[in-house]
Amino acid sequence: MRVSTAEIDFAHRLALAAGQAILPFFRAPHGLEAKDDHSPVTLADRAAEAAMRRLIEAEYPRDGIHGEEYGVKDGTSGRQWVLDPIDGTRAFISGRPIFGTLIALVAEGWPVLGVIDQPILKERWIGVAGRPTEFNGAPAATRACRELSDALLATTSPALFDDGQLHAFEHLEGACRSTVLGGDCYNYGGVTSGWLDLVVEAGLKLHDFAALVPVVEGAGGRMCDWHGDPLHAGSTGEVIAAGDPARIDDVLDALACRGHG
Amino acid sequence: MRVSTAEIDFAHRLALAAGQAILPFFRAPHGLEAKDDHSPVTLADRAAEAAMRRLIEAEYPRDGIHGEEYGVKDGTSGRQWVLDPIDGTRAFISGRPIFGTLIALVAEGWPVLGVIDQPILKERWIGVAGRPTEFNGAPAATRACRELSDALLATTSPALFDDGQLHAFEHLEGACRSTVLGGDCYNYGGVTSGWLDLVVEAGLKLHDFAALVPVVEGAGGRMCDWHGDPLHAGSTGEVIAAGDPARIDDVLDALACRGHG
Repeated sequence: MRVSTAEIDFAHRLALAAGQAILPFFRAPHGLEAKDDHSPVTLADRAAEAAMRRLIEAEYPRDGIHGEEYGVKDGTSGRQWVLDPIDGTRAFISGRPIFGTLIALVAEGWPVLGVIDQPILKERWIGVAGRPTEFNGAPAATRACRELSDALLATTSPALFDDGQLHAFEHLEGACRSTVLGGDCYNYGGVTSGWLDLVVEAGLKLHDFAALVPVVEGAGGRMCDWHGDPLHAGSTGEVIAAGDPARIDDVLDALACRGHG
Repeated sequence: MRVSTAEIDFAHRLALAAGQAILPFFRAPHGLEAKDDHSPVTLADRAAEAAMRRLIEAEYPRDGIHGEEYGVKDGTSGRQWVLDPIDGTRAFISGRPIFGTLIALVAEGWPVLGVIDQPILKERWIGVAGRPTEFNGAPAATRACRELSDALLATTSPALFDDGQLHAFEHLEGACRSTVLGGDCYNYGGVTSGWLDLVVEAGLKLHDFAALVPVVEGAGGRMCDWHGDPLHAGSTGEVIAAGDPARIDDVLDALACRGHG
């Protein structure tokens, strides 16, 4: 499908609505984390997703919705809005303004529009299949990376890897120039804008990665899973983002030491 | 020694000068990293330290200077300005606006003034022995943490630990609610402002930790090494920051599984 200008404008509106819902909770004193489980789910998360769902239900009632907080609402259009109101919940509760709201439009399982929005800093990447990605309204471009030993690699936490994945990741890490931890979706924004060369992660859900694909790829980068296959609604959650598509094979080779897959 | 108002004003001026030197280099395209070694040292680092050194030499010529980039200049006053122009160089080169400039005034080996400055976000923590810490001009306060299992723990990278330290840290991590990686000095700002409960790190140099002590302690927290001893110019670089001083003993107990030290 072709994403219309109206749909792009609507994605911006979703991001704004989520940001307005989130803002009052950032760095608010105490008691924001759910105490009934140990996951850092916040009221902000729920308020932002509810705000976005209301807009989608009003504007595109035939589209499905897949949200991190409120689950799946089936649609009849073959399209689905995939929402992660706060990607980087630990960053959020730590007071770091580098979490993000992720919004994707997925058509027949394939991401065709993606938004990474940072509401505190008012930073927004938006990517649409077939169009150049924009960062705060200006074109964004990944950077060249001539060899793996030049690459600045990011991953949010090695705790996301199982043993085989960790072994493979450490092998890759040894071949790269440097690794930076933390960062969540902000790392993919970094690849998009040419600040980082690679992000390699695992254990991601559809709402964690769907929005990233059009953003990174519309800036000249490439995303795929750990076998080199493109990411879609059925992917396993092993994710690679490379600013320079020419480095993908090197990354796959380095990760292949896992031995199976 | 007692820090004077003039010295506090001067510390603000140092932070401003460093920030102005750093700003043009943040997210500037390509070629900022030193290619001759693999450490992410930047031109910004050097420009910021040079700017601060010039001010100190003009204003307090008898004070020593200990900078990350340009080394030690001996003084005759028993005081030393300890400077880390960009703490969190990997965050900086990744485009994350959560690195910081660290400025400390150390008297006879003890930190008596500290600044954590984030020039992109224009955020500044300043702590002075015997005074309440300020964040952007308003008083900052750590938060209570009733037990370790409630604690949100941060550490920049497990790669900073040796094997024994890593074992001890993982033991502590298992007792805490959640761990967030990355963050550098911004984590200590987070403890100061009551967003995080604990930071535990090792391998820090004097310029990495001296500024943090007056900031965290002036907000009601406590800092010490992994033996519970206060941090000074001769400390080994094993660092604990706790927003709630009542949790220090629990942290020390959890880390003691290292077995020696």
